[in-house]
Amino acid sequence: MDTDQQILETFEKYLAQTLFPDEPELLYAPIRYSLAGGGKRLRPMLLLLSYRLFGDDVQRALPAAAAVEVFHNFTLLHDDIMDNSMLRRGKPSVYAKWGQNTAILSGDAMVISAYKLLEQIAPEYLPRILKIFNQMALEVCEGQQYDMDFEQKQKVSVVEYMNMIEQKTSVLLAGSAMIGATLGDASEEQIRQLRRFAIELGMAFQLQDDLLDSYGSDQWTKPVGGDILEHKMTYLMISAMSHSSESERKVLRETHRREDLTNEQKIETVLEIYNRHNVRHLTEQQISLRFDRALAILDDLGDEERTEPLRHFARSLMGRKK
Amino acid sequence: MDTDQQILETFEKYLAQTLFPDEPELLYAPIRYSLAGGGKRLRPMLLLLSYRLFGDDVQRALPAAAAVEVFHNFTLLHDDIMDNSMLRRGKPSVYAKWGQNTAILSGDAMVISAYKLLEQIAPEYLPRILKIFNQMALEVCEGQQYDMDFEQKQKVSVVEYMNMIEQKTSVLLAGSAMIGATLGDASEEQIRQLRRFAIELGMAFQLQDDLLDSYGSDQWTKPVGGDILEHKMTYLMISAMSHSSESERKVLRETHRREDLTNEQKIETVLEIYNRHNVRHLTEQQISLRFDRALAILDDLGDEERTEPLRHFARSLMGRKK
Repeated sequence: MDTDQQILETFEKYLAQTLFPDEPELLYAPIRYSLAGGGKRLRPMLLLLSYRLFGDDVQRALPAAAAVEVFHNFTLLHDDIMDNSMLRRGKPSVYAKWGQNTAILSGDAMVISAYKLLEQIAPEYLPRILKIFNQMALEVCEGQQYDMDFEQKQKVSVVEYMNMIEQKTSVLLAGSAMIGATLGDASEEQIRQLRRFAIELGMAFQLQDDLLDSYGSDQWTKPVGGDILEHKMTYLMISAMSHSSESERKVLRETHRREDLTNEQKIETVLEIYNRHNVRHLTEQQISLRFDRALAILDDLGDEERTEPLRHFARSLMGRKK
Repeated sequence: MDTDQQILETFEKYLAQTLFPDEPELLYAPIRYSLAGGGKRLRPMLLLLSYRLFGDDVQRALPAAAAVEVFHNFTLLHDDIMDNSMLRRGKPSVYAKWGQNTAILSGDAMVISAYKLLEQIAPEYLPRILKIFNQMALEVCEGQQYDMDFEQKQKVSVVEYMNMIEQKTSVLLAGSAMIGATLGDASEEQIRQLRRFAIELGMAFQLQDDLLDSYGSDQWTKPVGGDILEHKMTYLMISAMSHSSESERKVLRETHRREDLTNEQKIETVLEIYNRHNVRHLTEQQISLRFDRALAILDDLGDEERTEPLRHFARSLMGRKK
């Protein structure tokens, strides 16, 4: 059986061979730049590992795996314009490097290129895969829209936030798992279970991302407190809001704008309210709940040996040893 | 047999019934607005008429017809951002009405929605249709990129210009005709001929658009001379350049920027050089050549009665009686 590392290398090789024309240079160079920029290849890996749970010939699943990776990178190109982000994976974003119009148009060519990869799928699978892919792709757009809507809103409930991150983060993982399982001839019930696995795992991952941004850890390399300074709606902020008094909520809403405080003081002020309401513990509980649910679903999908690659994927995604 | 008008009404009804969710409002309202904004439905009509040349059950071709129309409107949403266009079909563009981020994200949801419509295509046709659709969609992006590249270029040849408008305008018509013919079980050779028909017709249409912008006519409702004032690379400008002396070329390049001239004087100055080199006549010749070629291709595809709907489509596209 291939190891994860072998599967990843096979995928990287396939993706690098995926041909984009040379001309027009300004359309395709940003696509090559974006795909060569690394990233963890989480979605294609989840697709391939989900396939491997049922099928043996990993080659059959490579075009779909490349399609979800190209689609994911397309969303980054356009998100970076919408969020005015100049950096992506530590390098200039396509938006920063080539400008807005190129990021729009190369992004468009990229989403079409994702569909072009689906041409490689065997005809008997194509209708089902196209349907899952479309549903996934639309829900990602919906999640991005809800995320932008939240920035305008005074009040966001925990349930609304959970729905948003489910759409924005988990949906692409869920679609990848479903496509892999479908190509492996899994049953409807097994596909449904892998979908739940991916959603719970994606939520755990997103919540952990929220937590680390405010509390840091050994693995966290970005500066701590970024979300607080940008007043981003995160699970921590929304939980704190829902447990706070009116006067505390005012502090949570206004601290990031105060000109009399340094960044360190702003972060400290907000963390102090988080701590008062045990937000860190609440978030850790929620992460464990989601992560444990994800692993429990795998128990139904096969014995430990068979499901070990997906368990390993889940643990390394969360930076956990066990 | 259905008349063109009946086919158009059937299409409009189908498109209006194509369901877009209510939420998130800001994602889907711009899509509904864009599709309800009219337009001539040239591409879906060409698809349906190409289908009708071979097949009888027009219902079978409606999802693909809607897909090309939704795709076309997606390109307009993003083009309007790139061109900073505030008006579209006499109404505020999505970009003007909702802003850049909405136009990007709703456009993204729209291109995915076009692929979602392809789910309705019978499985035995899907692989071929998906392939034609992808190829067409990528070439439209390539055409838009070449168009943007031209704005930066000092010198564009007539051949380069012809290639660009072939990709930007004709490719979508050609893809529509090919998809319709494929769904009607046309032969490879027939599909190839319909493709040529659409390309020649699309070129004739684009060249006529260039001509009318500078010389006007009874049917031309926009102000005359817009392309000249924007110094757009059109067939007229490029032909004039290629026949001009160095001093005339300088005038052609610089007139639109001169602050000592009124708009009327600028237009007059450029037209004077056009007339000196017979540019109007050259363009009319080129239009007739393309249009006649398009109609000649139809002769090979069936008798006059059978091909009459496509002839009628071609004539009304060009505003011709015969």
